[in-house]
Amino acid sequence: MIKVFGHFSPDTDSTGSPLIWAWYLSQVRNTPAQAVLLGQPNSEAKFVLNHWGMDQPDILTDLPAGTPVVIVDTNNPAELPATINQADILAIIDHHKLVGGLETKGPIDITMRPLACTATIMHELIGADMAQAPRAIKGLMLSCILSDTLEFRSPTTTPTDRALADALAEDLGVDMGELASAMFAAKSDISSFSDAELLRMDSKNFEVGDKKFRVSVLETTSPGQVLARKDSLMRSMETVAAEDGADQVLLFIVDILNEEATLLLPNDLTRRLAQKSFGVDATGDNVVLPGVMSRKKQIIPVLAL
Amino acid sequence: MIKVFGHFSPDTDSTGSPLIWAWYLSQVRNTPAQAVLLGQPNSEAKFVLNHWGMDQPDILTDLPAGTPVVIVDTNNPAELPATINQADILAIIDHHKLVGGLETKGPIDITMRPLACTATIMHELIGADMAQAPRAIKGLMLSCILSDTLEFRSPTTTPTDRALADALAEDLGVDMGELASAMFAAKSDISSFSDAELLRMDSKNFEVGDKKFRVSVLETTSPGQVLARKDSLMRSMETVAAEDGADQVLLFIVDILNEEATLLLPNDLTRRLAQKSFGVDATGDNVVLPGVMSRKKQIIPVLAL
Repeated sequence: MIKVFGHFSPDTDSTGSPLIWAWYLSQVRNTPAQAVLLGQPNSEAKFVLNHWGMDQPDILTDLPAGTPVVIVDTNNPAELPATINQADILAIIDHHKLVGGLETKGPIDITMRPLACTATIMHELIGADMAQAPRAIKGLMLSCILSDTLEFRSPTTTPTDRALADALAEDLGVDMGELASAMFAAKSDISSFSDAELLRMDSKNFEVGDKKFRVSVLETTSPGQVLARKDSLMRSMETVAAEDGADQVLLFIVDILNEEATLLLPNDLTRRLAQKSFGVDATGDNVVLPGVMSRKKQIIPVLAL
Repeated sequence: MIKVFGHFSPDTDSTGSPLIWAWYLSQVRNTPAQAVLLGQPNSEAKFVLNHWGMDQPDILTDLPAGTPVVIVDTNNPAELPATINQADILAIIDHHKLVGGLETKGPIDITMRPLACTATIMHELIGADMAQAPRAIKGLMLSCILSDTLEFRSPTTTPTDRALADALAEDLGVDMGELASAMFAAKSDISSFSDAELLRMDSKNFEVGDKKFRVSVLETTSPGQVLARKDSLMRSMETVAAEDGADQVLLFIVDILNEEATLLLPNDLTRRLAQKSFGVDATGDNVVLPGVMSRKKQIIPVLAL
């Protein structure tokens, strides 16, 4: 049985896309496949599963050598089980930059496209067979696009993602604005998470010079909820960084509706980084970055010290 | 101007595929692009260029940082300029195993498929726009497939490659058998090459245990021409291995028509490798391996010491 999975700390795309591809392999290609998760899905992904009537996939606890796998929504070994190169990697479908580190024993199917969302790439690959897709699969696709594009506000959005979302919404008879609002509200309720969980929820490692950063993002329609916990979040950064082998956690609180990010500044290192990276004069314990929505397009490429 | 290129020591696929893709980008997608080569094409590739009336592409001598490039027929940094990761890699189209080592600054187009030939993948990507392709472009595609599949004898051949070659041959009114024979005859005329050139002409690095091998293949319809130079080829192996930082050169002389390979055995190391890898009792200075045609499918996966 092929296991299909995305990255650690699954968001909506890394939860929905494995289900879409496992459906396609199993039901269209007659190749038994199972979607699994590399950890608990975030609260938006849980809402999406429930909204479209899908059971939450099992969490992968063990990956025996030689297990046939399809990797989606990442090509970064750091976001995958440590033994990933001992698995039998059959295919990779992704929309991130090529990182290097994954290796395969023979030629395989790899499709990477500069689109906002893995599900959009899958729609192209599935082609005419999409006619067989049940409502829940189309619904997952729509939700993945709305999530990864922040309802088309993110600069990662392409006309292809937008056109597909429009077509799916019309086909399903769904009001995209209402669905996106409900998804973002689910993601914005952070009351059940500890500070450390929030700092690790959507986080990627990135090095600037000789410093290792954990670049964490919280996308929310209710930034006040996060900012109310600012002091304890900043205290938690030290523990999380130490435990995860990083020099510093950076937390960007992305205000989806106002299209801006707030970066917390617990110390001189983060203030210097904010100044060098975004050209802002940062003296307090946080700074607002107008228009910044995308780690991939607007944060990682400019980080400097 | 985008540079499109394949691997060092260009064979027919690494010569023809850059020309096909540069045509597609320039003429169909209105994106100026130029095919270039990473070295002199082999004698089959030169024949193919001449046969279809195409000028030999320039050889790339310099790759300034930031040059926009499309990489075809490889994803292995060892087969590309040392500064490849400083180029602006726009896309990768390949049919080899994922090696790791290439890195991109942002998300890009990557299409890798387990097909015999890069040109077959390009045909799928070009889709309906193939109707605009001139005769020479279709001819290059056909020649790339005949070359990489050894006229469908290689186990790397897939039904997709075969069906496309049939369709192109019919469209072009070409006798595939005649074309393949002429191509293989061109490749088999080795009189103008030194021993060292023959050992490096189609060669990939591969490690077995703590030993580094240069795994070289000569595909020929005239194995006698190569075997007549057996003694001096074996003497040259020491110099080539030393110059290229390898422990040993392995030379497989692939007899295309008789569908077998002869492995030269200059010393105990190669005899032990032949015994462990292919289960043959090897005492002389060469051994015949019936049915062995493909380095990718039948040599690299079984190499052992």
